[in-house]
Amino acid sequence: MKTICYPEREEWGRLIRRNTLDTEALRETARTVLEQVRTEGDKAVLELEEKFDKVQLSALRVTEEEFEEAEQRISPALKEAIRTAYQNIRTFHAAQQFEGKKIVTTPGVCCWQKAVAIQKVGLYIPGGTAPLFSTVLMLATPARIAGCREVILCSPPNREGKIHPAILFAARTAGVDAVFKAGGVQAIGAMAYGTESVPKVYKIFGPGNQYVTAAKQQVSLRDVAIDMPAGPSEVCVLADETARPAFVAADLLSQAEHGVDSQAILITTSATLLQQTAEEVQRQLERLPRRELAERSLENSKLILVKDMETALEMTNEYAPEHLIIETADYLDIAGRVVNAGSVFLGHYSPESAGDYASGTNHTLPTNGYAKAYSGVSLDSFIRKITFQEITREGIRSLGPTIQEMAANECLDAHKNAVTVRLADL
Amino acid sequence: MKTICYPEREEWGRLIRRNTLDTEALRETARTVLEQVRTEGDKAVLELEEKFDKVQLSALRVTEEEFEEAEQRISPALKEAIRTAYQNIRTFHAAQQFEGKKIVTTPGVCCWQKAVAIQKVGLYIPGGTAPLFSTVLMLATPARIAGCREVILCSPPNREGKIHPAILFAARTAGVDAVFKAGGVQAIGAMAYGTESVPKVYKIFGPGNQYVTAAKQQVSLRDVAIDMPAGPSEVCVLADETARPAFVAADLLSQAEHGVDSQAILITTSATLLQQTAEEVQRQLERLPRRELAERSLENSKLILVKDMETALEMTNEYAPEHLIIETADYLDIAGRVVNAGSVFLGHYSPESAGDYASGTNHTLPTNGYAKAYSGVSLDSFIRKITFQEITREGIRSLGPTIQEMAANECLDAHKNAVTVRLADL
Repeated sequence: MKTICYPEREEWGRLIRRNTLDTEALRETARTVLEQVRTEGDKAVLELEEKFDKVQLSALRVTEEEFEEAEQRISPALKEAIRTAYQNIRTFHAAQQFEGKKIVTTPGVCCWQKAVAIQKVGLYIPGGTAPLFSTVLMLATPARIAGCREVILCSPPNREGKIHPAILFAARTAGVDAVFKAGGVQAIGAMAYGTESVPKVYKIFGPGNQYVTAAKQQVSLRDVAIDMPAGPSEVCVLADETARPAFVAADLLSQAEHGVDSQAILITTSATLLQQTAEEVQRQLERLPRRELAERSLENSKLILVKDMETALEMTNEYAPEHLIIETADYLDIAGRVVNAGSVFLGHYSPESAGDYASGTNHTLPTNGYAKAYSGVSLDSFIRKITFQEITREGIRSLGPTIQEMAANECLDAHKNAVTVRLADL
Repeated sequence: MKTICYPEREEWGRLIRRNTLDTEALRETARTVLEQVRTEGDKAVLELEEKFDKVQLSALRVTEEEFEEAEQRISPALKEAIRTAYQNIRTFHAAQQFEGKKIVTTPGVCCWQKAVAIQKVGLYIPGGTAPLFSTVLMLATPARIAGCREVILCSPPNREGKIHPAILFAARTAGVDAVFKAGGVQAIGAMAYGTESVPKVYKIFGPGNQYVTAAKQQVSLRDVAIDMPAGPSEVCVLADETARPAFVAADLLSQAEHGVDSQAILITTSATLLQQTAEEVQRQLERLPRRELAERSLENSKLILVKDMETALEMTNEYAPEHLIIETADYLDIAGRVVNAGSVFLGHYSPESAGDYASGTNHTLPTNGYAKAYSGVSLDSFIRKITFQEITREGIRSLGPTIQEMAANECLDAHKNAVTVRLADL
């Protein structure tokens, strides 16, 4: 980790710069695979699974027997944890239901918004060493609360042709309709275009490697919506002298273990805390199984000392972190002045891992500075707000001339005429 | 217009297909111009304005004198219409303010969302024959209500180096901070990257031709968020025997005059209405100044007769129109079953042009079937919902074991450790 003391403002840009992910180079690969899936359907997905996941599948859809087998294979303790997390995620997202109000903007002119679920959504869950069953809960739970008619999930199988049992158990718990054995670009293609087995969806959610990211970007240009642009995970810890070095170090390391491109930044007003945190990181690092990975990732990470909390806050707003942990005395006051962040963790007993798993908030969040313009996934991500308007004779009589004047000045006479024919009828 | 009677379900896909806009071909042009703006800033924008808009500008930013001149050049009637529309748009969007509730998901675990405005937004307003001052109101009004700190606007100047006075007046009315003379791809580049004159923004809104669309897509892959993918405008009218042919015809024509690629579809249960509407379209067409354009656009348009309202509703949900006008006896009942549409107009006195200009709803809406996954622009488009959580000692004590169990099973030991160090401290 690099330590930086009292940086000048001109240096900020460099300090908080991300390693940008260039998906341009992967564009051609993604395009070729997507096109193959679009034209050949299941046949292409089966071939690509054999090529990339080294598995010969007889069918893509996970069977009822496989779900039952999965349920038997995971421990009661994990089942209980998944159910607890599911309940909290459910509670928090259910409270986000939108109730539109009818607004009379002018007598006789009534306008309102109504939340309607996206009818078909697809969730992608990567494979690899760590089975991301928590992400299944984070995506499927709000989809079901929103009222999506069809919720499907794709995840790559292992070489035995099986999806990790915890992923299947979480999918069942959160109410996913169907799970398909497909990974990478072929999974994104299958959900974007539909195949014989996999239904076409209208929006695709979920993390993935850079190929998956490139494929999601590609299909989002024409065929389907996506949750948000993805990048490596990141955390920023704002801390003062009241913070515990052991907690801060653990929070930085929990980000660092995600991958070599993860970024963890500490911004503090306390030189003592900075020093002690650096020592704690070394101490805790030695006990971590993923030590090598975390060590490499820490090379991207920084401990920054600033002169006051005002400066710290400005810097974090400029950084716009995916996760922001505020471990200070007056954390609520500081939280009120955060304008750019994905999810904020307040006080000394709110580690990021609470939000990653079980407190109820969503862990699918904007990275790479996108928090300046994007929200994380929430119930909103699974609905559209459709607007409605009902205008009476009285309404068109009073509003009509305004519409006619504006339409005429935009040279749109047929727009004007749609009012004129109605006024003539009153 | 083509008339189709009682189509089989297999034909629906073909009937409701759009002319897709392929921006792939424009990608290289857009990329070259964007790169020039990114590296050369104002100098590039000035050169490109000379090249594409045939104007030599001394400065990009519109001056106070130009705003005053604009105000004098437009009629009192238009000023009043713009102010009335602004008030209605303001009323409807102000009612969309989000108030997050604090939710205790588990004793000691409190989570909430807070709406925070996107700090810097950029609006693009195309030039051309029709000055889209209504779009200025539709974008700047919610931006200001949301609390965006900086709201800028780019629009191409005419050959005298001026922006249309109605655009400047609308910008002033709705509270835009600064207006810049820049059009097309160079305007998108200037707002995405920033130049000496034009500030970089975090999200770009607004319509444009296919080059602007290609440029917005390009910058959205890495640099900045955009409102939504754009396509040609479209309307679907659902009507029964109670509908007035003159109203329906006027509604179809008001869509058709937008451009040759616009699409207007009537789906009706009444053969008589269909016939009379076809005749009315011809009658009204003859009186339209934009007759030629509307005539060409009507070639994409269809009058479809179906056997019952249930079928009509299914077809419109499959089409997912940007604008849906329901001119039937029981329009509220039908409206309750619409699942895919951008904005819905109810009854015989709610023409689309009301929502285009002045009723208060937004006219920036998803086209091209995107209504299946996207909402139109609303106050939500200018905010992010940041999540916060505050966990007490009691909270982490009860939730901690769940987090530890899940983290361990995802092989993320540092995540588990962030809880372990805290539990050890209790």
